[in-house]
Amino acid sequence: MFAKTPPPPYYAVIFTSLRTPLQDGYADMSDRMVALAAHQPGFLGVESVRDANGLGITVSYWASEADIADWKHHAEHTLAREQGRVAWYEGYETRVAKVERAYTFKRQDP
Amino acid sequence: MFAKTPPPPYYAVIFTSLRTPLQDGYADMSDRMVALAAHQPGFLGVESVRDANGLGITVSYWASEADIADWKHHAEHTLAREQGRVAWYEGYETRVAKVERAYTFKRQDP
Repeated sequence: MFAKTPPPPYYAVIFTSLRTPLQDGYADMSDRMVALAAHQPGFLGVESVRDANGLGITVSYWASEADIADWKHHAEHTLAREQGRVAWYEGYETRVAKVERAYTFKRQDP
Repeated sequence: MFAKTPPPPYYAVIFTSLRTPLQDGYADMSDRMVALAAHQPGFLGVESVRDANGLGITVSYWASEADIADWKHHAEHTLAREQGRVAWYEGYETRVAKVERAYTFKRQDP
């Protein structure tokens, strides 16, 4: 649910997206991409939320920009992005960012 | 829904949180914080999603790190964070990151 990231610096890919109503194949592709990404070198974790209106934010965390580029050019990921533009997404924004500071809060139950 | 951010570089605050079941005052506080932030110098936009399980990701975008620090130290925002730790959040992660690249896709309807 929360990514267990190391102390900064590391990199984040912020992917904000709005889905089309088309469900066909989407869940399988989404699960497959998370499983594939998790096996890529430099993958640190992922946090992902989508609401009932189809708006989603997925943030994946990576050790370096080179790791992000390698994942971007992974053949199956490239194909999935093409399918996403054809069928699954009304629109999206991808932002690549360098995480400089991080703070955690966790409730201490009595 | 999507933040209309300028060309990079700019900054992002990635706030991943898990809510408690307690609703009392939360929606008002959340709306008030977004309205306050939008009037802060350097505010560029915000994207926010929360699912039915209470997991949420909110990403706010800022022109500079100094703008983020000013917002962090805003008295009403500081009080809201304290209330959040007491009542509204099981846990959260806040990450401050410098956005270096951004890509947009928008469906062209026929």
